[in-house]
Amino acid sequence: MVNVGRIDLRSDTVTRPTPEMRRVIAEAEVGDDMFGEDPTINRLEQRVAEMLGKEAAVYACSGIQSNQMALRAHCSSGDEILLDGSSHIFYYEQGAPAALHGVTCRLIDGEGGIFRADQLEGMIHGHDQHESITKVVCVENTTNRGGGRPWPLQAFCEVADWAHARHLAVHVDGARLFNACQAAGYSPREFCEFADTVSICFSKGLGCPMGSMLVGSRPMMARARRARKLFGGGIRQGGMMAASALYALEHNVERLKDDHAHARWLAEKIARIPQLSIDLKAVATNIVIIEIAQEWGTADRFVELLQREGVLVLAFGRQKIRLCTHLDIPGDCLPRVVEAFQTVAASSYD
Amino acid sequence: MVNVGRIDLRSDTVTRPTPEMRRVIAEAEVGDDMFGEDPTINRLEQRVAEMLGKEAAVYACSGIQSNQMALRAHCSSGDEILLDGSSHIFYYEQGAPAALHGVTCRLIDGEGGIFRADQLEGMIHGHDQHESITKVVCVENTTNRGGGRPWPLQAFCEVADWAHARHLAVHVDGARLFNACQAAGYSPREFCEFADTVSICFSKGLGCPMGSMLVGSRPMMARARRARKLFGGGIRQGGMMAASALYALEHNVERLKDDHAHARWLAEKIARIPQLSIDLKAVATNIVIIEIAQEWGTADRFVELLQREGVLVLAFGRQKIRLCTHLDIPGDCLPRVVEAFQTVAASSYD
Amino acid sequence: MVNVGRIDLRSDTVTRPTPEMRRVIAEAEVGDDMFGEDPTINRLEQRVAEMLGKEAAVYACSGIQSNQMALRAHCSSGDEILLDGSSHIFYYEQGAPAALHGVTCRLIDGEGGIFRADQLEGMIHGHDQHESITKVVCVENTTNRGGGRPWPLQAFCEVADWAHARHLAVHVDGARLFNACQAAGYSPREFCEFADTVSICFSKGLGCPMGSMLVGSRPMMARARRARKLFGGGIRQGGMMAASALYALEHNVERLKDDHAHARWLAEKIARIPQLSIDLKAVATNIVIIEIAQEWGTADRFVELLQREGVLVLAFGRQKIRLCTHLDIPGDCLPRVVEAFQTVAASSYD
Amino acid sequence: MVNVGRIDLRSDTVTRPTPEMRRVIAEAEVGDDMFGEDPTINRLEQRVAEMLGKEAAVYACSGIQSNQMALRAHCSSGDEILLDGSSHIFYYEQGAPAALHGVTCRLIDGEGGIFRADQLEGMIHGHDQHESITKVVCVENTTNRGGGRPWPLQAFCEVADWAHARHLAVHVDGARLFNACQAAGYSPREFCEFADTVSICFSKGLGCPMGSMLVGSRPMMARARRARKLFGGGIRQGGMMAASALYALEHNVERLKDDHAHARWLAEKIARIPQLSIDLKAVATNIVIIEIAQEWGTADRFVELLQREGVLVLAFGRQKIRLCTHLDIPGDCLPRVVEAFQTVAASSYD
Ligand SMILES: [Ca+2]
Ligand SMILES: [Ca+2]
Ligand SMILES: [Ca+2]
Ligand SMILES: [Ca+2]
Ligand SMILES: [Ca+2]
Ligand SMILES: [Ca+2]
Repeated sequence: MVNVGRIDLRSDTVTRPTPEMRRVIAEAEVGDDMFGEDPTINRLEQRVAEMLGKEAAVYACSGIQSNQMALRAHCSSGDEILLDGSSHIFYYEQGAPAALHGVTCRLIDGEGGIFRADQLEGMIHGHDQHESITKVVCVENTTNRGGGRPWPLQAFCEVADWAHARHLAVHVDGARLFNACQAAGYSPREFCEFADTVSICFSKGLGCPMGSMLVGSRPMMARARRARKLFGGGIRQGGMMAASALYALEHNVERLKDDHAHARWLAEKIARIPQLSIDLKAVATNIVIIEIAQEWGTADRFVELLQREGVLVLAFGRQKIRLCTHLDIPGDCLPRVVEAFQTVAASSYD
Repeated sequence: MVNVGRIDLRSDTVTRPTPEMRRVIAEAEVGDDMFGEDPTINRLEQRVAEMLGKEAAVYACSGIQSNQMALRAHCSSGDEILLDGSSHIFYYEQGAPAALHGVTCRLIDGEGGIFRADQLEGMIHGHDQHESITKVVCVENTTNRGGGRPWPLQAFCEVADWAHARHLAVHVDGARLFNACQAAGYSPREFCEFADTVSICFSKGLGCPMGSMLVGSRPMMARARRARKLFGGGIRQGGMMAASALYALEHNVERLKDDHAHARWLAEKIARIPQLSIDLKAVATNIVIIEIAQEWGTADRFVELLQREGVLVLAFGRQKIRLCTHLDIPGDCLPRVVEAFQTVAASSYD
Repeated sequence: MVNVGRIDLRSDTVTRPTPEMRRVIAEAEVGDDMFGEDPTINRLEQRVAEMLGKEAAVYACSGIQSNQMALRAHCSSGDEILLDGSSHIFYYEQGAPAALHGVTCRLIDGEGGIFRADQLEGMIHGHDQHESITKVVCVENTTNRGGGRPWPLQAFCEVADWAHARHLAVHVDGARLFNACQAAGYSPREFCEFADTVSICFSKGLGCPMGSMLVGSRPMMARARRARKLFGGGIRQGGMMAASALYALEHNVERLKDDHAHARWLAEKIARIPQLSIDLKAVATNIVIIEIAQEWGTADRFVELLQREGVLVLAFGRQKIRLCTHLDIPGDCLPRVVEAFQTVAASSYD
Repeated sequence: MVNVGRIDLRSDTVTRPTPEMRRVIAEAEVGDDMFGEDPTINRLEQRVAEMLGKEAAVYACSGIQSNQMALRAHCSSGDEILLDGSSHIFYYEQGAPAALHGVTCRLIDGEGGIFRADQLEGMIHGHDQHESITKVVCVENTTNRGGGRPWPLQAFCEVADWAHARHLAVHVDGARLFNACQAAGYSPREFCEFADTVSICFSKGLGCPMGSMLVGSRPMMARARRARKLFGGGIRQGGMMAASALYALEHNVERLKDDHAHARWLAEKIARIPQLSIDLKAVATNIVIIEIAQEWGTADRFVELLQREGVLVLAFGRQKIRLCTHLDIPGDCLPRVVEAFQTVAASSYD
């Protein structure tokens, strides 16, 4: 089942560490992080806190973990959060807001995962005892189910201002924040200035084997650190994994623009295939959402046939598939991807 | 603050027991229900179970309690339920699905609280570990925020069939089930046949001081009974309150048609007031939703001015108010209500 | 199954309202308490708050409910409470601290449910991320499983001082607080001065069909009121039940000394039966714990045979039974109870 | 803050990967474990499942995580588990049973963490609605707070039989299971035969940077895998860390007997210091609990002074300290440890 010759566009999580990254991991200085003594984790936490302009940071095992650490730091049982209906936190974290914290999700009907401050009007709850208490507005940048769109700085700023003026906290699920920064032209720090907590992932576009980071104020990070322990996310000599993240911040951020160019190139070519359509102006980073004409058949079937051609992608609902470019997809394999899409699209269903 | 002369249309929960009901309460035979020995509660549970065609029933303190007993019987932490976005369970129960059980609400965008089976297509979750596990479809009948509409039997039957075919349970929040039956012409038993659990309320249109009932299969009711105890809903000589429910089932069900006629009469009169509009075909039971023209001002202000005229109603969002007819609103006070609406509508804002 | 001729000593919860109490219930002035407009509930809340020397009070359906409202007001998920291992809150509330709030119980090994401040030494947790965070010390007065003992004022005062000096809250489960006051000679107000929150029950010694009360500071009671709603404990025209409590506070407090005298009388008589033994100095209120000699057989069997003699009591573990005197046990039936114990004790075990 | 010259006996978690282990990590074959495609994780899961004689295994980030995955697989909110009062699960996992699952801990008063089947008699709860429902008996082997004692096979077998006969599950927290096997002479498979689920840790005596494993039946492991994802324990190219575990199972299990010999040697020497005492017959593996005479002063002070001598240990309550031998403590540094203890013990308090 290992991918000899296959082109894996299912997710940017599938990247494997390069020889250079493996060397850095092997040589990492480590200590017991449960005693606060892993020098590489400490260095990484400090580095990311500075980079995103926050007081403190906590290393975590995954993006779900860092998001849920944030929610546990912000909320109590019976509270609620406002977030787009397509959010990873609502859609892909196994109902963790409810299951881990007793927190209700109130959904906003944004466009491609991006919403406007005026859509939040009237959504604050909690003065009445019939209602849960609104505590946080969550923003995902880039939007995963929304097709990898970066939030415009201005739109986010307005949402954050609206929230802060009403004493709500703002959490950013920045699993692909660096993709957003590359595409939208703001720095991580500029964007994060308007957020109270931000989580980022090292295991997606940045190419690390694992790891995430949550940043925020010192008291919030103390709460988040406890939450990490509660979830069993406290690891010992985590410095080996943290070393890969330090390496990635140095070497794999700038190059995200290549993933974006690859995605663009693929989108434009695939959009010309008659049975397929793509909202090209929504393709801004490394994700492409492709709609399959109902006449052709279902996304599940398309995914299956593509796999026979050696190209892996994910079904994203009944008629949509998602592809994702990344570090392990060099430019020269892109034509083969287009060919595979053409072959499958041209084949008759069943 | 007691209502001398005021006409209270805020909710059908405001009804007060009549002298006859008080007499029945005073004379009720009682025992300790925590030992299963309250004869009046036992009689009421048996009566309602038969009436709704289910094996067993559990008396509860309130509609929130009976709904949450049902959810706890059906679900575990990490599960999810499907329900209309305007549902009482999602909107007015303080986020209890998440806060009490760790259960996520996935919302359906119905019309006036009523949705179609085909809208559920593709909503079942849980095969993938990123997702919570879908367990229950909830239906509210009549729909409170939806303006008191009764579910058509056929529509409910299709939803329930869809759910059962996929091994989901069906729960009915029937806080105003008897209103629905009166208006739509089906019997409680006919409607409940398609449901696994149903909760009904005695403290709304039926005019009791308190009390609810949950019905379902014997094993589910055993789980629900435990949940009731957990929530502190186990009461001792509850037979006094149960007696009021037995009385209400005898005397206050048939007369709900008067409340509906009163609501209809008010709706038609108030709809003619220029600054106000009402979706008249949605007025089917004892609830009327009135929209206030933006030029006039906000619902909050309208409610305030109406109160000065001695008429109490509730704001239901920024431009809407809800009024609710009930046992304590005799037909002869209706003209005074219309006058109050006219006076306030005609008054300039500020 | 109704008790014709049987003497029911299982619990002081089995009392049934007297004709006089029924009359008061029937005539109670009521309103919708969810709008804060039930005058009798409002009067009762004010009365009890004053009586116990606290700012505010919230009426609840049961003792479990008022205890859990207190815990939810004091604690968040991941916190812990310190309480005696025999406590009702730990033992008889279905694991509600964990199940409803995510709160851990750390147990103190007191004597008959009463512990000393020095036993708490070293028990405060939470500076280390491996530990849950200690928030509350709970005291039960009188102790139910401890045999109805009243806390000495001095012992409680020392525990409360210890807790407050360490920024812990003190909650009193005063389901039988008035029994404690009668027996120990302090007033409710004197005792409650050292507590942050106190719950009392109307449905035990006071003889009401249902109802409890939680008292404390205004902000804590606002939190508790929300918790009541979450648990489905919000009732509408609850004034009828509140009226019984007002009546009971007037007429049924003083007379608890009769229950105590009856329990004492029974204990002394029953202690002389060879197969049975009683720690007589522990019998201070209306509860008597009787130990059955292993040679005779089990408590379950003893309870069963007693029932055939028309006397109902509860097994309390393998070799113990508990009996409880109350309002519905007049002094003249006590000899019959002793006879029944003698008869059963003398009978050989199967 | 890195330990040049210091001897770190605080925990066996402080071990750092050796050059050889680092090489294995660097060369590990990896894939995306969220797609089930990390070959090294798959190999490790299979290897450990076989080794412990179970159908399936799930790799986890930490011992807390694998324990809590097990509890979530076994229990629902409102259930309870039976375990020794000194258990890691109760004491050092931040109240996770309550906080994550709504599960209550009922504590057994064992000896050094080891209890007898007959102590469980009468502890099963749940037939009565006042009680939480007993589901699991947990056993820790070796016992951490109990001083590293291994469970005798016979004692465990009796406990497990008792539990299974009553339809309870048996979970073993085997964070130091291999230490137990070394010391007690049974194989992991022999011991685990009596358990339903077992968690083991790679980051303690085995010397890995991180990682744990849970084993059990296939359906339970499917539930546990979901729980891992919920806690944010799903990592991507985890094979690098899994490779260290495969290496450790090969090279670091046999050598645990050296740690035990070192602990024994230290215990016997330190026990002769007048101000200190050790229960020598309890020293069976790599943990030594040392009691400090009250006249000398507190454990906190002793730990502080030892640190000045370059020896790190942990306070374990007011008068006790724990030391732990491990892979990074070669035999030739042991005399220096004894000297440090002698020096500190001889120094007067302040
Ligand atoms: Ca990766
Ligand atoms: Ca009413
Ligand atoms: Ca939710
Ligand atoms: Ca009673
Ligand atoms: Ca280690
Ligand atoms: Ca607990």
